Amino acid sequence: MKWKRSERLVDMTRHLLESPHELIPLTFFSERYKSAKSSISEDLTIIKETFEEKGTGELKTVTGAAGGVKFIPKMADSEVEEVISLLMKELGHSDRLLPGGYLFMADLLGNPRIMDRVGKVFASRFSDMDIDVIMTVATKGIPIAHSIARHLNVPVVIVRRDSKVTEGSTVSINYVSGSTRRIQTMVLSKRSMKSGQRVLITDDFMKAGGTMAGMKNLLEEFGCELAGTAVLVEAGHHEEVLVDDYLSLVKLRAVNEKDRTIELSKGNYFEKGGK
Amino acid sequence: MKWKRSERLVDMTRHLLESPHELIPLTFFSERYKSAKSSISEDLTIIKETFEEKGTGELKTVTGAAGGVKFIPKMADSEVEEVISLLMKELGHSDRLLPGGYLFMADLLGNPRIMDRVGKVFASRFSDMDIDVIMTVATKGIPIAHSIARHLNVPVVIVRRDSKVTEGSTVSINYVSGSTRRIQTMVLSKRSMKSGQRVLITDDFMKAGGTMAGMKNLLEEFGCELAGTAVLVEAGHHEEVLVDDYLSLVKLRAVNEKDRTIELSKGNYFEKGGK
Repeated sequence: MKWKRSERLVDMTRHLLESPHELIPLTFFSERYKSAKSSISEDLTIIKETFEEKGTGELKTVTGAAGGVKFIPKMADSEVEEVISLLMKELGHSDRLLPGGYLFMADLLGNPRIMDRVGKVFASRFSDMDIDVIMTVATKGIPIAHSIARHLNVPVVIVRRDSKVTEGSTVSINYVSGSTRRIQTMVLSKRSMKSGQRVLITDDFMKAGGTMAGMKNLLEEFGCELAGTAVLVEAGHHEEVLVDDYLSLVKLRAVNEKDRTIELSKGNYFEKGGK
Repeated sequence: MKWKRSERLVDMTRHLLESPHELIPLTFFSERYKSAKSSISEDLTIIKETFEEKGTGELKTVTGAAGGVKFIPKMADSEVEEVISLLMKELGHSDRLLPGGYLFMADLLGNPRIMDRVGKVFASRFSDMDIDVIMTVATKGIPIAHSIARHLNVPVVIVRRDSKVTEGSTVSINYVSGSTRRIQTMVLSKRSMKSGQRVLITDDFMKAGGTMAGMKNLLEEFGCELAGTAVLVEAGHHEEVLVDDYLSLVKLRAVNEKDRTIELSKGNYFEKGGK
């Protein structure tokens, strides 16, 4: 049975959204919907225009024998602003203040809708770069890493503090925590990455950047290359930051434990390249 | 500017897919597209039929003043079978065998497309039950928990082995690991859950079920109720299982470290209720 245009549009939209950064040959759609390629091309034009109009992303057409169409999630700057405002509003509540000037963020990191949007923010920023792997350190960065990974269609590797039997053989490094100056260990399964891969590292919170610098050392051990660094919240009150370049959504400028106030500003997302 | 039907269908499909289990008033769409409610209703009928035809899910219409439409992700049994076959094929490779009869699964758990499908499998099974929270224990269950949570539109809480300053005040319990019979500790931030919530617990691997039983005790400490248990892989060669009822996708029947063989079968997904 031949599909109607309206049905094709609904199902193609779903298929494209579920398969970001994947080249889909036009024959896939023409066979699925028992429709001519010319009709499929017209459908794709409608989807492309609607996606661009509403800030959903881009549809890239690749011509030739190995050609097809690829959906690239992209978020409009206005929506990125919206996400940053939402994060600042959420993070500014004084009941988030923990001893030592830390912020309670587990509820935000456990909110799948917010994580989905945060992941799309970073994925759209890094969409034109070659990224092979998203790396984070257990535990709190995992939802962000997975969300970015889903929008970029690449795997996640998780660095641990300790080695577990379920990791198989591992590579381990020692590094100095930037803020506490303690020696810490990071462990990554040997089969997680291949030499030459380009890696985006991410975490929920960055103080002096020691963890980020540790992950950078670790990926060098694997012969991999740093493609970018993405953090949800950076603590802005530290002088020394151990990483050169990174992208952040929110900056924690100051906390006052006595008055129970939290001072936040936008991160550097709109200023920096993030490499 | 009034939208054309074709553009509305594309944008509405995206909006519904991004907002599972959320009641969207028809006025939201009629205002967004500057279109009559009768046109929106016709659009929704097309989307509903296409979603049902292709096993994307259900569109539920709620009538009355507080009414609207809700997208419920549902996976057809045939696609669940596909996901289970894919998992069995992936998990059956002999190079996954680790000392002690464990399987290396980090690459599967780090694959966002596979995790998305696994999450949808469980979310569609639990879609008609009241679920308020998805709970897992750090680290490996987190991607599964987040994927289920995204398809059900509920938050994730993460139980840890140790208490961290960023968790705030915590509740801690001791439990006996089912397979090693060792006493272990589980910690959960006090603000993670409210009394009376219904909790779905999940993990990547279940041997004797000690971790699952520990999570069950922990949620009772919070005055919460167990709504279901979902595991990716259960080890089938253990006699005693400490949890009564659970849903699994794959069963690890036997491993032979000498011959390097892995014997797998389907889990109990199609046999059990999962409560």
